Amino acid sequence: MNTSIPGTGERNLVLAAGRAHPELADAVAEELGIGLLPLSAYDFANSETYVRFGESVRGADIFLLQSHTAPVNQWLMEHLLMVDAAKRASARTVTAVTPFYGYARQDKKSRGREPISARLVADLLRTAGADRIMSVDLHTAQIQGFFDGPVDHLWAMPLLTEYVRTRVDTSNVTVVSPDAGRIRVAEQWAEKLGGGPLAFVHKTRDVTRPNQAVANRVVGDVEGRECVLVDDLIDTGGTIAEAVKVIMAAGAKSVVVAATHGVLSDPAGQRLSECGASEVVVTNTLPIAPEKRFDGLTVLSIAPLIARAIREVFDDGSVTSLFDGNS
Amino acid sequence: MNTSIPGTGERNLVLAAGRAHPELADAVAEELGIGLLPLSAYDFANSETYVRFGESVRGADIFLLQSHTAPVNQWLMEHLLMVDAAKRASARTVTAVTPFYGYARQDKKSRGREPISARLVADLLRTAGADRIMSVDLHTAQIQGFFDGPVDHLWAMPLLTEYVRTRVDTSNVTVVSPDAGRIRVAEQWAEKLGGGPLAFVHKTRDVTRPNQAVANRVVGDVEGRECVLVDDLIDTGGTIAEAVKVIMAAGAKSVVVAATHGVLSDPAGQRLSECGASEVVVTNTLPIAPEKRFDGLTVLSIAPLIARAIREVFDDGSVTSLFDGNS
Amino acid sequence: MNTSIPGTGERNLVLAAGRAHPELADAVAEELGIGLLPLSAYDFANSETYVRFGESVRGADIFLLQSHTAPVNQWLMEHLLMVDAAKRASARTVTAVTPFYGYARQDKKSRGREPISARLVADLLRTAGADRIMSVDLHTAQIQGFFDGPVDHLWAMPLLTEYVRTRVDTSNVTVVSPDAGRIRVAEQWAEKLGGGPLAFVHKTRDVTRPNQAVANRVVGDVEGRECVLVDDLIDTGGTIAEAVKVIMAAGAKSVVVAATHGVLSDPAGQRLSECGASEVVVTNTLPIAPEKRFDGLTVLSIAPLIARAIREVFDDGSVTSLFDGNS
Amino acid sequence: MNTSIPGTGERNLVLAAGRAHPELADAVAEELGIGLLPLSAYDFANSETYVRFGESVRGADIFLLQSHTAPVNQWLMEHLLMVDAAKRASARTVTAVTPFYGYARQDKKSRGREPISARLVADLLRTAGADRIMSVDLHTAQIQGFFDGPVDHLWAMPLLTEYVRTRVDTSNVTVVSPDAGRIRVAEQWAEKLGGGPLAFVHKTRDVTRPNQAVANRVVGDVEGRECVLVDDLIDTGGTIAEAVKVIMAAGAKSVVVAATHGVLSDPAGQRLSECGASEVVVTNTLPIAPEKRFDGLTVLSIAPLIARAIREVFDDGSVTSLFDGNS
Amino acid sequence: MNTSIPGTGERNLVLAAGRAHPELADAVAEELGIGLLPLSAYDFANSETYVRFGESVRGADIFLLQSHTAPVNQWLMEHLLMVDAAKRASARTVTAVTPFYGYARQDKKSRGREPISARLVADLLRTAGADRIMSVDLHTAQIQGFFDGPVDHLWAMPLLTEYVRTRVDTSNVTVVSPDAGRIRVAEQWAEKLGGGPLAFVHKTRDVTRPNQAVANRVVGDVEGRECVLVDDLIDTGGTIAEAVKVIMAAGAKSVVVAATHGVLSDPAGQRLSECGASEVVVTNTLPIAPEKRFDGLTVLSIAPLIARAIREVFDDGSVTSLFDGNS
Amino acid sequence: MNTSIPGTGERNLVLAAGRAHPELADAVAEELGIGLLPLSAYDFANSETYVRFGESVRGADIFLLQSHTAPVNQWLMEHLLMVDAAKRASARTVTAVTPFYGYARQDKKSRGREPISARLVADLLRTAGADRIMSVDLHTAQIQGFFDGPVDHLWAMPLLTEYVRTRVDTSNVTVVSPDAGRIRVAEQWAEKLGGGPLAFVHKTRDVTRPNQAVANRVVGDVEGRECVLVDDLIDTGGTIAEAVKVIMAAGAKSVVVAATHGVLSDPAGQRLSECGASEVVVTNTLPIAPEKRFDGLTVLSIAPLIARAIREVFDDGSVTSLFDGNS
Repeated sequence: MNTSIPGTGERNLVLAAGRAHPELADAVAEELGIGLLPLSAYDFANSETYVRFGESVRGADIFLLQSHTAPVNQWLMEHLLMVDAAKRASARTVTAVTPFYGYARQDKKSRGREPISARLVADLLRTAGADRIMSVDLHTAQIQGFFDGPVDHLWAMPLLTEYVRTRVDTSNVTVVSPDAGRIRVAEQWAEKLGGGPLAFVHKTRDVTRPNQAVANRVVGDVEGRECVLVDDLIDTGGTIAEAVKVIMAAGAKSVVVAATHGVLSDPAGQRLSECGASEVVVTNTLPIAPEKRFDGLTVLSIAPLIARAIREVFDDGSVTSLFDGNS
Repeated sequence: MNTSIPGTGERNLVLAAGRAHPELADAVAEELGIGLLPLSAYDFANSETYVRFGESVRGADIFLLQSHTAPVNQWLMEHLLMVDAAKRASARTVTAVTPFYGYARQDKKSRGREPISARLVADLLRTAGADRIMSVDLHTAQIQGFFDGPVDHLWAMPLLTEYVRTRVDTSNVTVVSPDAGRIRVAEQWAEKLGGGPLAFVHKTRDVTRPNQAVANRVVGDVEGRECVLVDDLIDTGGTIAEAVKVIMAAGAKSVVVAATHGVLSDPAGQRLSECGASEVVVTNTLPIAPEKRFDGLTVLSIAPLIARAIREVFDDGSVTSLFDGNS
Repeated sequence: MNTSIPGTGERNLVLAAGRAHPELADAVAEELGIGLLPLSAYDFANSETYVRFGESVRGADIFLLQSHTAPVNQWLMEHLLMVDAAKRASARTVTAVTPFYGYARQDKKSRGREPISARLVADLLRTAGADRIMSVDLHTAQIQGFFDGPVDHLWAMPLLTEYVRTRVDTSNVTVVSPDAGRIRVAEQWAEKLGGGPLAFVHKTRDVTRPNQAVANRVVGDVEGRECVLVDDLIDTGGTIAEAVKVIMAAGAKSVVVAATHGVLSDPAGQRLSECGASEVVVTNTLPIAPEKRFDGLTVLSIAPLIARAIREVFDDGSVTSLFDGNS
Repeated sequence: MNTSIPGTGERNLVLAAGRAHPELADAVAEELGIGLLPLSAYDFANSETYVRFGESVRGADIFLLQSHTAPVNQWLMEHLLMVDAAKRASARTVTAVTPFYGYARQDKKSRGREPISARLVADLLRTAGADRIMSVDLHTAQIQGFFDGPVDHLWAMPLLTEYVRTRVDTSNVTVVSPDAGRIRVAEQWAEKLGGGPLAFVHKTRDVTRPNQAVANRVVGDVEGRECVLVDDLIDTGGTIAEAVKVIMAAGAKSVVVAATHGVLSDPAGQRLSECGASEVVVTNTLPIAPEKRFDGLTVLSIAPLIARAIREVFDDGSVTSLFDGNS
Repeated sequence: MNTSIPGTGERNLVLAAGRAHPELADAVAEELGIGLLPLSAYDFANSETYVRFGESVRGADIFLLQSHTAPVNQWLMEHLLMVDAAKRASARTVTAVTPFYGYARQDKKSRGREPISARLVADLLRTAGADRIMSVDLHTAQIQGFFDGPVDHLWAMPLLTEYVRTRVDTSNVTVVSPDAGRIRVAEQWAEKLGGGPLAFVHKTRDVTRPNQAVANRVVGDVEGRECVLVDDLIDTGGTIAEAVKVIMAAGAKSVVVAATHGVLSDPAGQRLSECGASEVVVTNTLPIAPEKRFDGLTVLSIAPLIARAIREVFDDGSVTSLFDGNS
Repeated sequence: MNTSIPGTGERNLVLAAGRAHPELADAVAEELGIGLLPLSAYDFANSETYVRFGESVRGADIFLLQSHTAPVNQWLMEHLLMVDAAKRASARTVTAVTPFYGYARQDKKSRGREPISARLVADLLRTAGADRIMSVDLHTAQIQGFFDGPVDHLWAMPLLTEYVRTRVDTSNVTVVSPDAGRIRVAEQWAEKLGGGPLAFVHKTRDVTRPNQAVANRVVGDVEGRECVLVDDLIDTGGTIAEAVKVIMAAGAKSVVVAATHGVLSDPAGQRLSECGASEVVVTNTLPIAPEKRFDGLTVLSIAPLIARAIREVFDDGSVTSLFDGNS
């Protein structure tokens, strides 16, 4: 008698999402041409979170989408519960998709006796059962190394530069970094936009007026130029708004602000709408509530990029290749 | 030349606490006769949590107290960050003290495709760097087995029974469980209070009236007796209040409600103050805000028990022995 | 030149079994329509166990069936050796099938300085290389949380209730728990059998005769009723037999005893056959030697359920769905 | 206010033993000048094993002695339960002392689809919570590498050679290996005994009689010599007894058999007492029941060596140094 | 709407190789009928190594070939970097193919305070991300147990014996081990070559001349015989060359030297070409530079064996079966 | 009888070093007032490395110093072997001290299918048995998060700035970064030196001459100023030398180059001595061979800082505090 039963190797891609950012989840599902896997998710009276998948995920390659927006701890914990449930329900692989990765800015010990929260998040996802992480524009690329497994790191820059290119005269552009720590990103932008000059904003003494106090100044050429002020995220907007003012004060013709993640914590809206920027461009890796929106804010959709990356992962294609042609 | 430098083996016990339950932390520290280790803990604008110890914890046996009260995910994540910070700051051992252990009720898969959240919490604490867990009256004792290391499981029952013994006539007591799943606890109470009878509340048909619908009834003798209704926790109070009514309707002389953990989610206060119980007794493993309090609520302090257990752990004494004499 | 060789994703289900319960292994294999994978298993002169698979298991989804019957340590160790051999022989996935999970009753520390043996067993299976556990009616559902991976938890209750329903008048049934700790199971039985009343046996003082010593009594209505006394397992039968007598003494019309696991350690046979029960129903999750059998013992086959669950696992179907329709 | 409580670094050495070899445990405890830590250990009716320490082990350096004698699986599982209990009871370090390490001979895959049982045993001990292993004369030294942590490997050879030296004329000694695989050990013996010649027994054709069948023969000089036949263990004694006969047939003057571990499975006693050896010397790493003993058997006590090694470990001394002077 | 996307289970075998032994990599690829996966590998100015795969390996079963030849640490580290890159690039499985496994001879602690380097290498490969190891003639078979996963252990002996059989008169062969520790291998050779006698070289006193110093001597019959001196590897050739001289001095007719791994460190070439051996046979598990070669050296290709084993692994066939028919 | 033996908690600090940088090891030992623990370390003929400690390390807090200089793979592997040996020899804690941490620059995936080598190194050290890492000026601070345990991260900046402060007129200093990615470090330097202006070198088009090709230019004010060009390490010196030339061409008065790690791979010496810098300052985290030295090179000793940090770690003091006063 035969001692084995043959089976096909067929696999299934399924997508489920937590409650943090339903619009993005719907958009990604639509791009993929499928419905979201039904998920029950609610909080008990004492605030503990409950999740349950509505259909079998056994043997599936499941992608669990949750953007770590405020309240971050709430959505992160919901994400971990979803991962645990998928693991225990015998999913074949579990990919945690975090368009915005929570705690990414706490990626090192700035001083003694701090946690390294971004590493902790990676470890928590791993412990819960995630086999892979997919994320967009991590605050520092080193965060990839915090996870003991594959990290598919998507870049929003092609999306952003393609748009910004239509809004400025690239022959007269200066790319500006809002502080000294992010100039490397500005450099990449400058390259994309045609190799123009760089500048950054920096707190310093004016060397020509030795007795004057330290203040924010622009280092580099911005006079008469169309400036693009770039960062990975905009949180309360303080640094950005201040930088726009300094750049304009230094004689710039205009300033477009561009960032991947629109955190937009209060009072970002007010600051940004009043700072003098001609336009503020972000993607929808995070939900942006109506009350956070303001004139001059442009939100680009990251959903097509995420959907394409998910397909590449599932089809054993190349995520790297997504960024060779147009980035 | 000598090839080594000798050092003493001296150790230090330090206690730090998150923001969930400062009153309990202060009380435990006072019992121990020390101050709490200074801790900076606050939330960034986008709701990410930041923690940092204000003094060196290198080589210390650190006890990190956090009660997983609402918002649970917030305080749990803060707990994990504290543990991570202590590990990376070279603490000798890290004990996570959770007077109330979050997600304890989600300790199994009731249905397919659920997480086992209580196991997940144990794994998260372990991954962050906890060497030991100390907790009070876990929802089920099996949760001890979720942690891969020592769990010091404290019992509030001696504290509660000692008090309740002064409020009822133990020769006329019936201990009642509010549902079929917790009768084992009621049985332990009955034993402590002198071996009196047990009862429980159960949804059933009345066997004497076959055509009547299913309803809550008391199984066991309560008529004319002083009843003690016991549970490990009181959340919204629905089950408890309903049980009190059923017991009184069955002819009980009085009902005292006793539980370790006063979760007291809305509308517990209203329900309990109106249900007919003569007194509701809980401990302060969880903070009980003034607006949650009501007439007839008695809150016993768990701080002395936790402080004694911490001393036993630090002194390599016996936590087990704390419960031999008077429990 | 091409840099890769394509391969099909075909998989194979194979089933192998240790020496603990060959009848069940044969029955499951027959239900699946395959032969058992040949396995050499014997003990050396000094009692060390040796196992070896007789055919290649490379790439296979292997299910390793071993029921942890007496001598438990012997069969558990054999189980671990089989898992290790399968892992090292490159099986794709290894599922440890334990119809009866050894040490399940030691699932917590009842007192200090005990092991948590049920967690240890889960860890041992994991360490040896098991990816998944499949088991029937674990002593407590929390044991699922002891394993860091999927646990397919099968319920024998539909099988048992379906049979018992044919043996009693469900309009006159009372379901009884033999002690306070297992009433939750009795409650589930009562629901299945139509929502009748519950009772349990409990050591207590008779409240109507204050001076009398503590004794076992039935709490709940059993007089004139057909009782079903339920438990997850019957070991030496002492508690069960005593309960039957107490129930009959309380005026019950009859008592059927039902349990999933027939451990039936001596002197269970004698006790059960003499206690007054009209019938004792168990499944064959454990082998029941001829000398353990007695009149009035009914053994139902669990093999069809296990076989169906194995198929669902292999086919990436839903094990949960097995219990939606008829349980 | 002070934020820490100082504690001394005092440590405690405690010794506990399973039921496998109580005589050895008593002897080691006596050498150490302490009593064994009280341990409850028994089997439930269904053969599951239960253990519990009778005193607190919190903070202690605990040594858990269990010799893996028959029934090996029983004693190994008891050993694992003891380790788990010690870990969960907050022992500072746990050392598993296995004078005879079970499954040591299954240290590689001789054929495909076998387990590597000796590695599995190391992993099981590690998983249960052992920080260190102490053992005597592992079958192959590579087993040290199976454990991810320190292994204190004790040699019985100094004890054995010191004794044998008093029984033979070392100027006329030939050390003989019973098969080709253990000649390295014989070589070490020969060196200890003064550098005399080596021989081994081997199944071969007689090169001087080409047509004769293959048979066991001695390779090397034994004629007229006092032979010492050495091995790490004697199990059923078949190979050893056969070797003694071949050696004597080849003209040896006498044969003393020496081995560390006296497994002595049936019918070792009969074989050894009838084979022609003048004496059989083993140590008591394993219990040797009275019915296994025979005339000509000498049992040396390993207890002093184990006790000294335990002290060195506890005192942070050097176990290596135990073997520099006299081995 | 459908909630899943089906995918085929197709898999891909890819082969990549480090810089240690390109000839063998090419030969294995040719046997498999594919090209090597493009790999960039070079050293930075400060000697740090860089690797990058030139094509996507997502979802592939990748075999990473690196023979641990000198400089061993360089090639081992390159191997680890390749494994890490493959893991992070989402390979489905990663098999580290080490025809010669570095540090295999440091497989135990010969003295205290040494590392167990062969175990460390296994752990490093595991940590980097290897799921399986494939190797040829490990120094001791126990090394398989150092890796926590499947090890496909290939034997070169069939290849070597098949060749040697054509070079000697098997009716007059004696197989000789160069020292006491490797006689087991010689025994296997003897069996393959028809069951002839064994011998080994050993440092000993001449029993017939008691006053003479210790010297190397042959134990066993070699006079007038065609000897095959076997070992797993030849490093500097000192032991081997010395053994050949002793064997010839003892009257052997001729000596053929055979070993799997030709390490051939200086001055192996000179020693072996001058020692009197008629031929030295090795395989190409290690690269043998032209300057290491000498007259009388025969190098057999291991590539077909490795290629066949890779196919068996990929096709879920049986590697064990490769050695049943012709070995 | 007593069941335990008391022991003191005394501990020992020992320091051992690999062969990579003996001068630094001697200097650190001298600062600590002890001798280095004797270590045998050499390479076998086939280039495998061997290490062994010459004295017992049981129970010691051992610090294993190895600077990952060229050949990096050689010294890294030696470091891992030392860690493994210390773990297996029962050291209480193992701290890997890497003044220069190898592969630190490969801390992220710049492109797909690369390893994250700096994470791999952290994992390898962890796997071998390191409990803690101590290092100086990691290339990016995120590398701390690659290790799952405490990392004591020392800063050489106080040492360097203290020296440079004596060589320049701080009222006329501009701190310059050699590229856009390291300006954050320059910013910290500027702060230390009194808050002067920042500049960086950047490849860009000259905005005033649109048709001219892209070239390196200084962004920021350097004309007439004493410039300090800072980086974490100097490898081949190409970027640095080019930057010096550009800065001087832009009218700077002088340029002092300062970096923590003097990798100084060829042709760094030639480039730096000819580029126009007035002085090049590094520390001795790496050995600098005589032939690498050149006029104008100043090497500061890092030994006192490392020795102080080791004492703080051993004494459970605060490493953080080392950088509060003077950094």
